[in-house]
Amino acid sequence: MLKGFRVAAVDAGIYAHFNKPTRPDLTLIAADVPCTAAGVFTTNYVKAAPVVLDQQHLAANPNSIRAVLVNAGCANAATADEGLQNAKRTTEVVAERIGCMPSEVLVMSTGVIGTHLPIAKMESGIAAAASALGADAWNDAARAIMTTDTKPKLVSVTTQAGYTITGIAKGAGMIAPNMATMLSVVVTDAAIDAETLQMALQSAANESFNRVVVDGDMSTNDTLLLLANGASGITLTGMDLLNFTAELTDVCEQLARMIVADGEGVTKFITLRVNGARTSAEARQIANTIATSPLVKTAFYGGDANWGRILAAAGRAGVEIDPGKLSLWYDDLQLVMNGTPRQYSESRATAIANQAEVTVTLDLGLGDAGAVVWTCDLSHDYVSINGHYRT
Amino acid sequence: MLKGFRVAAVDAGIYAHFNKPTRPDLTLIAADVPCTAAGVFTTNYVKAAPVVLDQQHLAANPNSIRAVLVNAGCANAATADEGLQNAKRTTEVVAERIGCMPSEVLVMSTGVIGTHLPIAKMESGIAAAASALGADAWNDAARAIMTTDTKPKLVSVTTQAGYTITGIAKGAGMIAPNMATMLSVVVTDAAIDAETLQMALQSAANESFNRVVVDGDMSTNDTLLLLANGASGITLTGMDLLNFTAELTDVCEQLARMIVADGEGVTKFITLRVNGARTSAEARQIANTIATSPLVKTAFYGGDANWGRILAAAGRAGVEIDPGKLSLWYDDLQLVMNGTPRQYSESRATAIANQAEVTVTLDLGLGDAGAVVWTCDLSHDYVSINGHYRT
Repeated sequence: MLKGFRVAAVDAGIYAHFNKPTRPDLTLIAADVPCTAAGVFTTNYVKAAPVVLDQQHLAANPNSIRAVLVNAGCANAATADEGLQNAKRTTEVVAERIGCMPSEVLVMSTGVIGTHLPIAKMESGIAAAASALGADAWNDAARAIMTTDTKPKLVSVTTQAGYTITGIAKGAGMIAPNMATMLSVVVTDAAIDAETLQMALQSAANESFNRVVVDGDMSTNDTLLLLANGASGITLTGMDLLNFTAELTDVCEQLARMIVADGEGVTKFITLRVNGARTSAEARQIANTIATSPLVKTAFYGGDANWGRILAAAGRAGVEIDPGKLSLWYDDLQLVMNGTPRQYSESRATAIANQAEVTVTLDLGLGDAGAVVWTCDLSHDYVSINGHYRT
Repeated sequence: MLKGFRVAAVDAGIYAHFNKPTRPDLTLIAADVPCTAAGVFTTNYVKAAPVVLDQQHLAANPNSIRAVLVNAGCANAATADEGLQNAKRTTEVVAERIGCMPSEVLVMSTGVIGTHLPIAKMESGIAAAASALGADAWNDAARAIMTTDTKPKLVSVTTQAGYTITGIAKGAGMIAPNMATMLSVVVTDAAIDAETLQMALQSAANESFNRVVVDGDMSTNDTLLLLANGASGITLTGMDLLNFTAELTDVCEQLARMIVADGEGVTKFITLRVNGARTSAEARQIANTIATSPLVKTAFYGGDANWGRILAAAGRAGVEIDPGKLSLWYDDLQLVMNGTPRQYSESRATAIANQAEVTVTLDLGLGDAGAVVWTCDLSHDYVSINGHYRT
């Protein structure tokens, strides 16, 4: 049982403001005491206002974050100074309601780029959420931060040591291979110093959210936050921190896999392993190129074992490879050995390509390094969802 | 009227061999006299056998190329030594039929990766094509090299100076921003030395085929060939070569635009200009990132003026930009000025986004360099075509 955090999700009318069907669209997470906090953010040069503001607040108050406000329906990105002022105003309203400094509040926004937050609706929504705060609304929160997600993404683990880690995430589109690739808030009632918390979060992100590729489009808003309030009475130091990082990584991995499985229009979950690389960076570069290839993704959608497209994508990744050393497997079926197609069973390959989950392994034959990414197919529904997202 | 080249297109049974509906699938272009020749090839590390062989033949015989053989239905890529031996065998058969050395024959293949050429069918097809060679079958040739193209792509220009440039191309999918991005053969009856020919071809490719983005997937087979036989009796030197390069560029630009307009499932032709960059390389990098963004492409398919996605793609291109200096136009409608959304007419923006042709201009506000690419939308039909390409 997570201690010392309260949460609420309300319909603030943000969706209604943009002439969309109403739904819960504003989430407030509040800590009873100041938290240490860490964040991993988009590396996009076009950063949304909440990203810019959070980076300032985290740098100023890594030991006294009190709340996270998340809205769906408006990304508050590409909104210039007015967007930053609006984001600041929401932190002021939260601070008044829960009794802290505005710079102790973090904010996240997701939705359409280039539109302004409906600030009056945000203000009344924050008031309603602050009044509704309770210990049990995490599933409501996971649901209220969704955009084109079809399922809420909530993971909560109570460890043997006795503290709890709870995380929510939203994904669906604009899921790219570099850095935090969505919105996610993870909280724990363990006590951990802020510097360690940042290292643990970066490590967990590298092994989880950074392995996820839906469409290769990196968002302006990607944010992963971690708050620790110490309310469990358990202070983590030394070797305990290794356990914490492992448990945090596990929570993040579960959330990351949920994001891929619930990617826009996804019908297949693909685990892509690139082995035999000179360096893990090169392995990841090739894996990301394959995972973002429209031709590879549409072939998996069609259940076509068109493995030549995987080799073609590997060859254009900007990493020098030797075509004569490539070997390729779908699950345990080897299709290519040292650059030469094998006499494999086409019906077996097609059967694998039609599974809901497929593991593709590409061995470069150049070294001992490797990388894994989790990705998905590209379907008619992806095109439908993104062709009419605003309308 | 093009002089000194003959061409034939036949149904060699390659499509039938792979259990697809029969159609003309083999094209032979033969020169009456040895040609100077030039080529631009895919930079993919996984090069198809015909690319490897052509590079050898061009290096050995830049002044005595006699024929180009093109097959559809099988890419002869990822086929290892057997694929290279098959490609060589086809050059031997062509050489026997038209009376030249095998190393004076170039070959191109397009179709599925990872399958072997049906060599007996290729041999009888070459015999049939060699018997059918004539001056007038260029449109048939343009049709026989198609795969998922819906229209043949043929351009022929007779210049004021009196020589002719004739080109055919196929595109449709796997159209990437780097280097020759399809199959194309261009021939001229002017006389030009091989070294100059290569420079002219590289220059023309940079201004035409290299500006084309359909899906960002670079083929294993991309090849652009240029043959000059001198049959017009016109020898080009000095300033004439500038005119030739301009005319060649014009032919290549027309073919390149046809490739985009006939890209797989394309409903919209988008001219994307990135201005105000520090360097043209940075401008092109940003333009290519925008042009390959699934979110940008699906928005255009849906006729949604979701311009925020263009800024988001620009921000993740790996080029340092200043969000506060970005300005954006759809045709002549300015949507963003110095990072701030303008009060534009949404109905006017939507009307532009629904046009069959749209010009998008992004000014980075950083310098004087720019780049232009031609790209397209991402539609349901693209997914259908590529989900079931082999089946």
